[in-house]
Amino acid sequence: MIRAIEYKDGVLHLIDQRKLPLVSEIFECRTYRDAEFAIKDMVVRGAPAIGISAGYGAALAAREFASSEHFDEEMEHALDVLNASRPTAVNLMWAVAKMRTLLHEHRGKSTAEKVRLVEELAERLYREEEEISRKMAENGAPLIREGMTLLTHCNTGSLATVGLGTALGVIKHAHHSGKKLFVYADETRPRLQGGKLTAYELKDEGIPFRLIADNAAASLIRDGKIDAIFVGADRIASNGDTANKVGTFMLSVLAKEFGVPFYIVAPMSTIDFDIANGGEIEIEERAEEEVTELNGVRIAPQDIRAYNPAFDVTPNHYITAIVTDKKVFYRGTYGFSLTKE
Amino acid sequence: MIRAIEYKDGVLHLIDQRKLPLVSEIFECRTYRDAEFAIKDMVVRGAPAIGISAGYGAALAAREFASSEHFDEEMEHALDVLNASRPTAVNLMWAVAKMRTLLHEHRGKSTAEKVRLVEELAERLYREEEEISRKMAENGAPLIREGMTLLTHCNTGSLATVGLGTALGVIKHAHHSGKKLFVYADETRPRLQGGKLTAYELKDEGIPFRLIADNAAASLIRDGKIDAIFVGADRIASNGDTANKVGTFMLSVLAKEFGVPFYIVAPMSTIDFDIANGGEIEIEERAEEEVTELNGVRIAPQDIRAYNPAFDVTPNHYITAIVTDKKVFYRGTYGFSLTKE
Repeated sequence: MIRAIEYKDGVLHLIDQRKLPLVSEIFECRTYRDAEFAIKDMVVRGAPAIGISAGYGAALAAREFASSEHFDEEMEHALDVLNASRPTAVNLMWAVAKMRTLLHEHRGKSTAEKVRLVEELAERLYREEEEISRKMAENGAPLIREGMTLLTHCNTGSLATVGLGTALGVIKHAHHSGKKLFVYADETRPRLQGGKLTAYELKDEGIPFRLIADNAAASLIRDGKIDAIFVGADRIASNGDTANKVGTFMLSVLAKEFGVPFYIVAPMSTIDFDIANGGEIEIEERAEEEVTELNGVRIAPQDIRAYNPAFDVTPNHYITAIVTDKKVFYRGTYGFSLTKE
Repeated sequence: MIRAIEYKDGVLHLIDQRKLPLVSEIFECRTYRDAEFAIKDMVVRGAPAIGISAGYGAALAAREFASSEHFDEEMEHALDVLNASRPTAVNLMWAVAKMRTLLHEHRGKSTAEKVRLVEELAERLYREEEEISRKMAENGAPLIREGMTLLTHCNTGSLATVGLGTALGVIKHAHHSGKKLFVYADETRPRLQGGKLTAYELKDEGIPFRLIADNAAASLIRDGKIDAIFVGADRIASNGDTANKVGTFMLSVLAKEFGVPFYIVAPMSTIDFDIANGGEIEIEERAEEEVTELNGVRIAPQDIRAYNPAFDVTPNHYITAIVTDKKVFYRGTYGFSLTKE
């Protein structure tokens, strides 16, 4: 299995996802600023993987400031920096908040002790995430029956998470358990995470699939070629409204129009119980060059403007169910009843 | 104004649209096989432009075989070749059919006379197309009001047609008449005709716009940011079902779901009265490399498969109106009543 994140001897090793699928290279983070860069520049991406990387980023910071007189203030600042590295992923804020709480609870302890605790927590977050990944896959597996053709968007596999993945994790689990499947993978413009990363993972797993331009999904859905759609989530509001990679919302509308089940797969940590609905989710706008250039080559005329939202929000009434590590939440007549326990 | 097609002294000059937007180069066709190649390889694209180019392709063939003893058979074969150069564009078949009828009607005439007649017809088709373009723009103009924000897909301007264009022609006409507009242009994967060609034309015209990934359209439509959607057509069935660039159908579903008018703009010649509905339209599947490569650079893993339909069909009940050179056909309770006159 692909392992996108590995922390060893104070160095965070990340598969450099900017270079996949043709080059498989490790990006080494030795400082928390390296981790910030890796998150910001999408060396590492996918909400769960970002959370874990931020945790290790905190561990790197703790090591850096181990001999500083202002350890607490330096850590406070480092956590702020990490927290601001990507605006949409709730996992990022969740991991950073856990670190803050830990440092607050142990504020009387020695710096050496705090460094150890931060590193320990980062490792624990990793292991918990692995376990969460396994549980999501198990909970989602019954939704996939022998012979199904599935559609997925963006990358939600081992490169986006720790373990099997979220949406792609459920698909892989069904494949591992011997179910015959076929997958259509949206290439997912502008950053092509589907074409670059999901295609890489599906090929690696030996799951039969075809890559499609995002524009080709609609007719497949209408014409009964897709039995179910599985996507991940970057942030889920209390009512089930879900922010995910741009293009997700479009698929959900088509799914509803043509009666295809539309599943979100995400860990409980993706649910932000502090926000009532999707209207409160800030949508990150990324660089216009993601649309006007590809691999550094200009594909649009010079001196034109692009609009490049990285995510969109799918209102909950377009979602059939939300698969989490706790359980599968189905949408009922009055919407979702998402609960912490 | 951009002029994509020009025939002079037995040479067909085409703006090489494979090289736009960064390089503006002329591709010269001196034989009908050059014209066939230009259509097949998309040096020239857009249904109306393909039709006109096929007409000039026939003129090139007539010149080539002017001294052949088997002029009629050679022409018959050349027309077959041109007819098969792209499978979806009805304009192509329409132009070739006109040439066949002409040659049949004048089969008794001398070869020199036939060559003259074929060339004359090609020129007439060009002039008629120019006039058709003007009329479509005039008929569609009242649909656009001051201050509107419009969405368009693929390229339907001067590079796709002769004259102003179809969908983009209506938009340009409104702009020329002094209406303030804003346009969102879908980049239109896989071939990026929106990002490369429509952006080129909008910039050239000075119309304010933003380029978007196709995935970004859905939220704009839902959130009331789009007042109307204008697209072209490659083939329209008798009942109004419309084949157009892949991605069109998805926009039509979103338009209906969120109450945004969805307009097709196409010349009457695009309507194929011989087919009852969209189910009879053959959808061209193009090379998988259009998805897995970009500008000759591999963007997906090696040795994977893609599915690449070039078009999709929008069932007529998702269409608000069809703007033609004759009139605007609105969809009524019982569907469209498309008539030749």
